[in-house]
Amino acid sequence: MKLTILGCYAATPRTFTNPTAQVLEIKNRLFLIDCGEGTQVQLRKNKIKFSKINHIFISHLHGDHFFGLIGLISTFSLLGRTTKLHIYGPMGIKEIILLQLRLSNSWPNFELIFQELTNKESELILEDDKVKVQTIPLKHRIYTNGFLFEEKEGDRKLNIEAVNKYQIDTCYYLKIKKGGDITLDNGTVIKNEELSFPGIQPKSYAFCSDTIFNETIIPNIKKVFALYHESTFLQTEAELAKKTFHSTASEAATIAAKAQVSYLILGHYSTRYENISLFKEEAQRVFENVLLAEDGKVFDFDALQ
Amino acid sequence: MKLTILGCYAATPRTFTNPTAQVLEIKNRLFLIDCGEGTQVQLRKNKIKFSKINHIFISHLHGDHFFGLIGLISTFSLLGRTTKLHIYGPMGIKEIILLQLRLSNSWPNFELIFQELTNKESELILEDDKVKVQTIPLKHRIYTNGFLFEEKEGDRKLNIEAVNKYQIDTCYYLKIKKGGDITLDNGTVIKNEELSFPGIQPKSYAFCSDTIFNETIIPNIKKVFALYHESTFLQTEAELAKKTFHSTASEAATIAAKAQVSYLILGHYSTRYENISLFKEEAQRVFENVLLAEDGKVFDFDALQ
Repeated sequence: MKLTILGCYAATPRTFTNPTAQVLEIKNRLFLIDCGEGTQVQLRKNKIKFSKINHIFISHLHGDHFFGLIGLISTFSLLGRTTKLHIYGPMGIKEIILLQLRLSNSWPNFELIFQELTNKESELILEDDKVKVQTIPLKHRIYTNGFLFEEKEGDRKLNIEAVNKYQIDTCYYLKIKKGGDITLDNGTVIKNEELSFPGIQPKSYAFCSDTIFNETIIPNIKKVFALYHESTFLQTEAELAKKTFHSTASEAATIAAKAQVSYLILGHYSTRYENISLFKEEAQRVFENVLLAEDGKVFDFDALQ
Repeated sequence: MKLTILGCYAATPRTFTNPTAQVLEIKNRLFLIDCGEGTQVQLRKNKIKFSKINHIFISHLHGDHFFGLIGLISTFSLLGRTTKLHIYGPMGIKEIILLQLRLSNSWPNFELIFQELTNKESELILEDDKVKVQTIPLKHRIYTNGFLFEEKEGDRKLNIEAVNKYQIDTCYYLKIKKGGDITLDNGTVIKNEELSFPGIQPKSYAFCSDTIFNETIIPNIKKVFALYHESTFLQTEAELAKKTFHSTASEAATIAAKAQVSYLILGHYSTRYENISLFKEEAQRVFENVLLAEDGKVFDFDALQ
């Protein structure tokens, strides 16, 4: 599981800072989370293949989280895309996109499948053999969801030495990788544990932005591997955070600690701060494993322990 | 009159090329023409004051000409703007903007005044004491207008030597600048020509993008000082230009020559061409005074003759 930050700043795009967008790679699939203005250019700069993005998740309908979506869809179309595109986002997202496509008389050659969200409880919105995605209802000025991505248990790794020792035919290898035991010709059953090693530990990632400090999300994100929690402000602006339904670095760290996550990634910084290392310092007074999102930064979760 | 090119490439924003947007400055007023995705960042890069933009003109509803508008309006709002903003563009532009403002629950604190265009004939859309703006109906795949900006005759310049010679009081200076004659105390009338010099020659600018080669626009742009005419393609792609309702550099030059303009500015280049100097070479076979638009380039019309 690998996370590429395309943009992690609040409010407006600027010369050197981009609004929210990130790409989560799970087993060679790319999930785009939020899509602020300029996301398509950030995708190009970070050399991410447009054709591999089939699922886009929009947290809420504030501009810094979705104004780049219509442009990205149009570019997909100009590039000749034919593969279906799934878009998950608040009720209204479909109307916004379809209105603009209609008025520009530019219908894409691929199917757009909208899943419009209205539920105030967490719900499962995508599941296949490799991943499960659920919403995390957040508290912001308008209807907002975070998203929890859970990688499913992958194949076990073949213990070549043991497999050779029992002279097991290659046609059984897949069965072994899937966790199956093997019965030899003489009737002896060899337990899977003897023939394989555990695969890569499945990882989980929770994206929570934008939100006020809200402990009710803790059960939804309990023990996730990496939590991206917005920290628009520092504790010196705690009142402003509350008033605008945003969080401080310290509050994000409190959520991380209570949810017992492995890593906390901070982002959605207000552009009023020149030095984002202050966010890390503040958060680390509450929770140790703090990482700072930065535009263009890549977090390889499998390389972290 | 000064033109700043924010973006002059067709189709999609890329790492180093921006979709259409330009700022025309006329007597300290800024007119934004088209607003592709990323325009607000281009405005920042080119150090153009957001607060001085009160009029935005949108040629047509293809994404590369207006996807940056909603973001710019939102940023105006976040920056605390209170001044009215006038938006001129095809019918539908109002619905697109208001829908997004409604769904994001983010109403600006300034008044948005839409003038939606449907006329297939040229019409006057803005006139004050300094400037006159008329539409130039273009032929493209969807309803499209170019815009003709005409600066009005400015004040004459005081001939200080002559004014001193006749000992004319400073309270008459404005009358002289406006072209008035002066009657001395002894009854002698001094003609204005003796007391002042002509002011700066008023300039005119026609923006024509996107359009197929179309000679019917010539009467609308006859003898303008500078004509920006799209040249998406070179003549080698003339068939493709026709099919997509775009023009070639050579066609743009033909229009410039027939309309007897002073300068032709080429732009809206397809990103398929690596070397835009080919556009200039091609156009100059037909018309001499060719300038190439480039992102970030500034044309000072008063410095050109």
